[in-house]
Amino acid sequence: MIHWTVLQEALEEGHALIEPHIHRTPVMTSRQLDKMVGGALFLKCENFQKGGSYKIRGALHAMMHLSEDARRAGVVTHSSGNFAQAVTLAGQLLGIPVHIIMPESAPRVKRVAVEAYGGEVIVCESTLEAREAAAREVIDRTGAHLLHPSNDLDVIIGQGTATLELLGQAPDLDAVICPVGGGGVVAGACIAARGTALVYGSEPFAVDDAWRSLQSGRIESNQTTNTIADGLRTQLGEVNFPIIRHGVKEIIRVTEEEIVAAMRLLWERMKIVVEPSSAVALAGVLARKEAFQGLRTGIVLTGGNVDLGALPF
Amino acid sequence: MIHWTVLQEALEEGHALIEPHIHRTPVMTSRQLDKMVGGALFLKCENFQKGGSYKIRGALHAMMHLSEDARRAGVVTHSSGNFAQAVTLAGQLLGIPVHIIMPESAPRVKRVAVEAYGGEVIVCESTLEAREAAAREVIDRTGAHLLHPSNDLDVIIGQGTATLELLGQAPDLDAVICPVGGGGVVAGACIAARGTALVYGSEPFAVDDAWRSLQSGRIESNQTTNTIADGLRTQLGEVNFPIIRHGVKEIIRVTEEEIVAAMRLLWERMKIVVEPSSAVALAGVLARKEAFQGLRTGIVLTGGNVDLGALPF
Repeated sequence: MIHWTVLQEALEEGHALIEPHIHRTPVMTSRQLDKMVGGALFLKCENFQKGGSYKIRGALHAMMHLSEDARRAGVVTHSSGNFAQAVTLAGQLLGIPVHIIMPESAPRVKRVAVEAYGGEVIVCESTLEAREAAAREVIDRTGAHLLHPSNDLDVIIGQGTATLELLGQAPDLDAVICPVGGGGVVAGACIAARGTALVYGSEPFAVDDAWRSLQSGRIESNQTTNTIADGLRTQLGEVNFPIIRHGVKEIIRVTEEEIVAAMRLLWERMKIVVEPSSAVALAGVLARKEAFQGLRTGIVLTGGNVDLGALPF
Repeated sequence: MIHWTVLQEALEEGHALIEPHIHRTPVMTSRQLDKMVGGALFLKCENFQKGGSYKIRGALHAMMHLSEDARRAGVVTHSSGNFAQAVTLAGQLLGIPVHIIMPESAPRVKRVAVEAYGGEVIVCESTLEAREAAAREVIDRTGAHLLHPSNDLDVIIGQGTATLELLGQAPDLDAVICPVGGGGVVAGACIAARGTALVYGSEPFAVDDAWRSLQSGRIESNQTTNTIADGLRTQLGEVNFPIIRHGVKEIIRVTEEEIVAAMRLLWERMKIVVEPSSAVALAGVLARKEAFQGLRTGIVLTGGNVDLGALPF
């Protein structure tokens, strides 16, 4: 069983802890989008967050809970991009050395950003084995603490602060929807919205591990990573899965075309730069309009780190 | 001589008049941009304005000042895009029929937007003669009032409300900078900032008519329209030129490369979609850093209507 009340208290405390270090990102609305859906949408713009995504929230929260000794030894993580940048930025803010294991497939813009903030990047092959070997090497060398991007309760609680803020900025929400990759932000949303609003997840058909995991009752893997939503290729973990399983109303799946169309809407109508993974949440609302008609729905726009040299338009 | 006090009173009144119909767009900041300049920048995000640019301000203001008879007959204007969209939207809000003369070179996205709001589009060749003939035809047919996009005092005052808001949202500004095309928004800024902040204009080298006009003391034309900043290809007029001549501290000229680089910065770092003409103002600040170091500078980001299928990245 999940102790929602305890988690919600930790979320409130965590928010107070990290709030001085992050942006209170705006919530945007659009009558054009509302008309398309037949409901009221409230877009939490974490693309404007420090480091370009919500991930700074979880990174800061987890790293602020490290002991003095652990802080001195530093932090190592693996990430396709945004969590890497977030950990590096948090390390800079807190004076903690960071080492980032990055797959060689990661977008150039993300690698450059990590190095600009002073993080050490260790590039490895895009396999689980290579990643784990690289992490072990760093830990042996430095004694660094291994921080998981989404399957760590302190990270999940940090990510939940995005939804906590959204619920305060857009009162009386009926529903909240987040993209689902590793599961951190949606698990955080489940904690934040428990007893207040329904929580939906959205993910690409191409990497529908979360949808299948909720069907089968155990953590499923993806056989391919063939989606434009590069932030969502990972799978759930044993820490966040129970929260998601008991907290999420439904996982909506969307096609690649739906993702690009939603991204284009956000760029063209809202005039904001969001990455494909962010657009997945809006795509989910548009794909399942009937679930959101007449409701007030919060959408977590998770990030805006996109390679302008490789756009799908 | 220019009666600044009278104009400033008209500006305050005009703002009160149009305020219920427009968005109070946010002012964004970026420590990264501030570092690059060595001063504090405050970006007035008119790309988030209704219709995607500040032009709704001038269109509404001028159209709200029409007589009942004139309102019934309707409005005709010519525009490469944003003013067209603004007049159409204002017509929809106020119940005034509108006819838009558009050059055949106008971006597709802008033509589609006008038609979506219910405006009549009359496409003509991209010459002054063709434009004027098309306007005459509409006036003969409908009795519509001809509204100039930038050389009309009611339009200028409407555009000035963007800077008026900016000065309120970012207190103690030392300077304000706007792109210069037809001269409406920068003339409006001169009225708004008179006695408060210095006003700079910025324009592409390729269409540096305003810079040359200030040098020569008379309205100069452009020999080419060879700039990515499609909103700035027009020239000053006899109504706004005296205001600009007496109100502007300096016109800064920027290269096409500087425009694209500034646009990329705004997209990549600020995560906002702005059109090239908007980026010209930031490009001007970056090109003349020494003028803005240690100062608090407001930048009017004029619009975000860009064809995603034809990006310069």
